[in-house]
Amino acid sequence: MKAAKYIKQGTFEVTEGELIKPEKGEVRLDVAYCGVCGTDVHIYHGVMDARVSPPQTVGHEASAVVAEVGEGVENVKVGDKVAVRPLKFGEPHPFDKGFSHVGKNLKFIGIDSAGAFQNSWTVPAYTLHKLPETLSLKHGAFIEPLAVACHDVKVGRVKEGENCLVIGGGPIGTLIGYVLREKGANVIISEVNENRLEMLNNLGFTTINPIKENLVELVSELTQEAMIDCVFEVSGSGPGVDAMTEVVNVRGRIVMVAIHGGEKKPVDLFKFFWSEIELLGARLYEEDDYEEAIRIAETGALPFEQLITKVDTLDNIQSVFETIDNNPAGMKYLIDCQKN
Amino acid sequence: MKAAKYIKQGTFEVTEGELIKPEKGEVRLDVAYCGVCGTDVHIYHGVMDARVSPPQTVGHEASAVVAEVGEGVENVKVGDKVAVRPLKFGEPHPFDKGFSHVGKNLKFIGIDSAGAFQNSWTVPAYTLHKLPETLSLKHGAFIEPLAVACHDVKVGRVKEGENCLVIGGGPIGTLIGYVLREKGANVIISEVNENRLEMLNNLGFTTINPIKENLVELVSELTQEAMIDCVFEVSGSGPGVDAMTEVVNVRGRIVMVAIHGGEKKPVDLFKFFWSEIELLGARLYEEDDYEEAIRIAETGALPFEQLITKVDTLDNIQSVFETIDNNPAGMKYLIDCQKN
Repeated sequence: MKAAKYIKQGTFEVTEGELIKPEKGEVRLDVAYCGVCGTDVHIYHGVMDARVSPPQTVGHEASAVVAEVGEGVENVKVGDKVAVRPLKFGEPHPFDKGFSHVGKNLKFIGIDSAGAFQNSWTVPAYTLHKLPETLSLKHGAFIEPLAVACHDVKVGRVKEGENCLVIGGGPIGTLIGYVLREKGANVIISEVNENRLEMLNNLGFTTINPIKENLVELVSELTQEAMIDCVFEVSGSGPGVDAMTEVVNVRGRIVMVAIHGGEKKPVDLFKFFWSEIELLGARLYEEDDYEEAIRIAETGALPFEQLITKVDTLDNIQSVFETIDNNPAGMKYLIDCQKN
Repeated sequence: MKAAKYIKQGTFEVTEGELIKPEKGEVRLDVAYCGVCGTDVHIYHGVMDARVSPPQTVGHEASAVVAEVGEGVENVKVGDKVAVRPLKFGEPHPFDKGFSHVGKNLKFIGIDSAGAFQNSWTVPAYTLHKLPETLSLKHGAFIEPLAVACHDVKVGRVKEGENCLVIGGGPIGTLIGYVLREKGANVIISEVNENRLEMLNNLGFTTINPIKENLVELVSELTQEAMIDCVFEVSGSGPGVDAMTEVVNVRGRIVMVAIHGGEKKPVDLFKFFWSEIELLGARLYEEDDYEEAIRIAETGALPFEQLITKVDTLDNIQSVFETIDNNPAGMKYLIDCQKN
């Protein structure tokens, strides 16, 4: 069987992989499709070498078919179509307060251990969520990022009829837009890339390019001065952090989705006090977010085919990552992990 | 009758005041005691001249006795002991979402209009909360700042047994400490002033001086690595903002009590994402916070006499403000507004 392995900064290699027999509580999967996440691109750029152990198979946005089950596995059977929630829970720690998905000892499958860019992948059975018959394996690869979006919207406590602004219209920002629509919220997406803006407009989203337009004034117009009840900061940029406190109304929520690594960023703390606004961190997903993502995917509300920039083979993985680097406006690239 | 008026930066003057007959829905009060708030000190320093209209009577932490009621007033009668919630609500605005206490058109009585440093004060009847018989007028002057503390703890959703850290042990930080104790939380107060630390220790609080001790390590020891469920940033300082994200645990809350005016401050946004922490702005109080403050004051849980640095007369107001400037370690100064 074949496995695409991250070797070193800028380099993937497709090699013979090892088919791992599932132990007790484990399941061996025939990986169907695996999406390329921004985190995979970070790994490809070599900035996560302290966490991955090259040569290592990465990838975690997977759909799959159950190929073999280990002892005691009861939640799935051979032939089931599944999505994988790639979290390996460690020892609980008092610091975690029971939130194991962001716990001190959490390991992320596909970063801290082998991922899905291979024909066959063996994972704990508890990571699996069955896909409904009506959802294709190709679209099932969206469940992981869609669960991120569901988690973000859940953390933001968004209610029907609320005004929401998504800062950053990449794959996660766009999926947040769809989950918000499904909740009956009014959605505006702020994005600076013209190709993405065109795509978002074609998908029917109200968009703002904050480089060309005055974001705060336009939001005020669009909301009849009520401004934004819930902002999603997905851009990871300084201007995004500036904008988030400028558009939010009294008791408004700002969900921090982006990974603001490196230097601390200046934040308008006075505004937090003055209008009693909230900043809410959101990371990964919990079990119910996967169920919600599967439910929303099944409704047909998401135009998955339009969100797929390209489907390619395992053998071509190097060129897929090179393409992503040269085309930051792309949405979702999928790897067909049975096609070499 | 006498009124102490703010004239200009650094200057109060005690002059003949105007006794104002209450109009419909208004009440004229004989002011009993009025505490000096940090905001009054800011006014005295001249930094709020854009908002106050000198010469203006300021002061808003008042207890009083009802002297005269206007037409239609039914919630109080002559002779009632009251605390004043000095908020004048304006036209509702969609931006406010019904939270009138932080609404766009809110006016603060004692800043935006005449305050309580005078013998007689006329205010809307809806600002009044009756004091119980068992609570003295002197201690009733603590209801306003205690309501701030109740609001902060309410916003922080603190539950019994939780670990809480108050950064900044001045008057508001200390009152937050008492409200937290009353909720059954474990309280640590971080403070840099040695005189205040000694006082806090005498009041039975666990304290840390972050200049002399390693705050994060000590908090870890004191909480057996569980760290802090709810932090109250009351210091308004850069080190306070740094510390707040370092001590908080998974899904921990940080209540932003301090007024961080001026430059934006660098914030560790990564930590918000990573541990799903929350920053919650808290300003002023709502009606139920006053009721809660009165309830807690009535229990006798607060050693008001120990918290009073000095009681002085209206005539001495200038020297009280000068003393506060020279003694930043003081707790609460009260003005006896019937004593000239």
